[in-house]
Amino acid sequence: MDDFDQYRAEMNEKLLGSGHLGIKRFFALDTQAYEDGTLDKKTKELMGLTASIVLRCDDCITYHIKQCVGCGVTRAEFMDAFNVALVVGGSITIPHLRRAVDKLDQVLENGN
Amino acid sequence: MDDFDQYRAEMNEKLLGSGHLGIKRFFALDTQAYEDGTLDKKTKELMGLTASIVLRCDDCITYHIKQCVGCGVTRAEFMDAFNVALVVGGSITIPHLRRAVDKLDQVLENGN
Amino acid sequence: MDDFDQYRAEMNEKLLGSGHLGIKRFFALDTQAYEDGTLDKKTKELMGLTASIVLRCDDCITYHIKQCVGCGVTRAEFMDAFNVALVVGGSITIPHLRRAVDKLDQVLENGN
Amino acid sequence: MDDFDQYRAEMNEKLLGSGHLGIKRFFALDTQAYEDGTLDKKTKELMGLTASIVLRCDDCITYHIKQCVGCGVTRAEFMDAFNVALVVGGSITIPHLRRAVDKLDQVLENGN
Amino acid sequence: MDDFDQYRAEMNEKLLGSGHLGIKRFFALDTQAYEDGTLDKKTKELMGLTASIVLRCDDCITYHIKQCVGCGVTRAEFMDAFNVALVVGGSITIPHLRRAVDKLDQVLENGN
Amino acid sequence: MDDFDQYRAEMNEKLLGSGHLGIKRFFALDTQAYEDGTLDKKTKELMGLTASIVLRCDDCITYHIKQCVGCGVTRAEFMDAFNVALVVGGSITIPHLRRAVDKLDQVLENGN
Repeated sequence: MDDFDQYRAEMNEKLLGSGHLGIKRFFALDTQAYEDGTLDKKTKELMGLTASIVLRCDDCITYHIKQCVGCGVTRAEFMDAFNVALVVGGSITIPHLRRAVDKLDQVLENGN
Repeated sequence: MDDFDQYRAEMNEKLLGSGHLGIKRFFALDTQAYEDGTLDKKTKELMGLTASIVLRCDDCITYHIKQCVGCGVTRAEFMDAFNVALVVGGSITIPHLRRAVDKLDQVLENGN
Repeated sequence: MDDFDQYRAEMNEKLLGSGHLGIKRFFALDTQAYEDGTLDKKTKELMGLTASIVLRCDDCITYHIKQCVGCGVTRAEFMDAFNVALVVGGSITIPHLRRAVDKLDQVLENGN
Repeated sequence: MDDFDQYRAEMNEKLLGSGHLGIKRFFALDTQAYEDGTLDKKTKELMGLTASIVLRCDDCITYHIKQCVGCGVTRAEFMDAFNVALVVGGSITIPHLRRAVDKLDQVLENGN
Repeated sequence: MDDFDQYRAEMNEKLLGSGHLGIKRFFALDTQAYEDGTLDKKTKELMGLTASIVLRCDDCITYHIKQCVGCGVTRAEFMDAFNVALVVGGSITIPHLRRAVDKLDQVLENGN
Repeated sequence: MDDFDQYRAEMNEKLLGSGHLGIKRFFALDTQAYEDGTLDKKTKELMGLTASIVLRCDDCITYHIKQCVGCGVTRAEFMDAFNVALVVGGSITIPHLRRAVDKLDQVLENGN
């Protein structure tokens, strides 16, 4: 587990450990939303990645890059997805795409 | 052509008719972004729909619903896409999802 | 029921009638989030109103104005809440505040 | 005065008529921000227009279009400004640019 | 004073030291917005916290957490506020909530 | 070249090196949008700066500060631009303005 995954795991535990039922249920919905359904997991993860880029959330982008790699998304498919997000979200997304392509290379090379 | 498509077409013409090369080129990029590439058109339209919902743009949602229907996206697949957008974007997207499901029914019934 | 409430009810039914479990559960979480808990309903509705203004969603503002009126929020308290949202969200929220104060007067006068 | 200006004036009066000092002072700051200063009014109105487009607020766009026309901004300058906003904000701004170019023509033709 | 507060104080001084009257007056409005009024400071700080989470600004979240702790907001009340913000703003707020719960523990333990 | 510029250059190269034609063309449009046209480069960079502040993107703000300094924008003009952005975007932009004024001083003193 890299630093990102570890911090993510520890703080999720803090949030869930608070015992707030609403937060706990939201986290369950979040996990279930990307599972194979009428649309398959790969398509949903690509949708989650696009949403994360246009909403400009680096941690969300990192998370969905890892999930997409796990679903077999190729580098060329990532670039095609980045392009859709760039056109929809505009140049304001470019700093996030720079960090995204950096992270993508790390994940493809090191598995993390 | 319904009112939405007509207004869209007329105003796009005004924007492009201004002769600004940058705007013209942007519109070309926008069209090309959703064409079959490494990812297919259907997947890209679903990504565009998700982005439009989390960014809460009714006209963009209407446009991508029509494109998705043209790509054969089923009602159940739309619901699965709406769910991903709802979880990512939160309850603030709900008024847009209400209008989206209304529009979806019109498009599925009338083809527009 | 006014037009807003009727459209809202009908379209919510369409969304829920689709049978998507994730959407159904999200709607339940949304309702529960504003119920009396450690924080009381009035405080939570004021928080929901503020969030709706800074995120600039007219329908969400209308909904929370009605809920706040139901919780006994006074006109002076609304103005104090509008002021916090205006300072946080900036002048871009002003068109929404114009519609909010218009709606507030309607709700206070007609109960809807 | 057209309908837009009239509703704007009446609701601003309601907001200011509430007697909330914070809201009143914010409105004063908002007016002063666009007055000739180190940067001139025309430049500031173009900045306000750009900000309104990327934040996607139709009423704010309409307001700044009118102000810009009053400052002598030409149609070609508007197109150049729309292009910057389009590149920064992405295709999600296009529906707003369609309404903007429509409004611009009305203001240039009718003065309103 | 921790690093956050020190940087904040120094840079606020730079902004205010520029002598721009508009900026100075905005900062005054910002401070006054959260003072006891028709709504009390605690309610307003909770509204500011919610707005900061749904707008996803870490520094603003940190600031309002400290203010809320100063107003006696309990850990359980924070969780209830986090839940409202999570439902309104969606999963895109989760990385900010992870940092928020981390910061909250630091403030509750160290007073900073 | 400082760290910011170096990372920016390297990652832009990665994005462009992917060979995706859409991304490459978008980057060209982005560069061209700020060149002297009907509006001059200085005005456009000020518009880009304002858009970056209200959309709250630190890297974009840093980039446009450097470009504006290159166009001869003075400290007083920056403050006037910051004020417009602050009024439009609200207090949520303040943490970004703190980092902006810090960066501005570095650029004015060290040329980077």
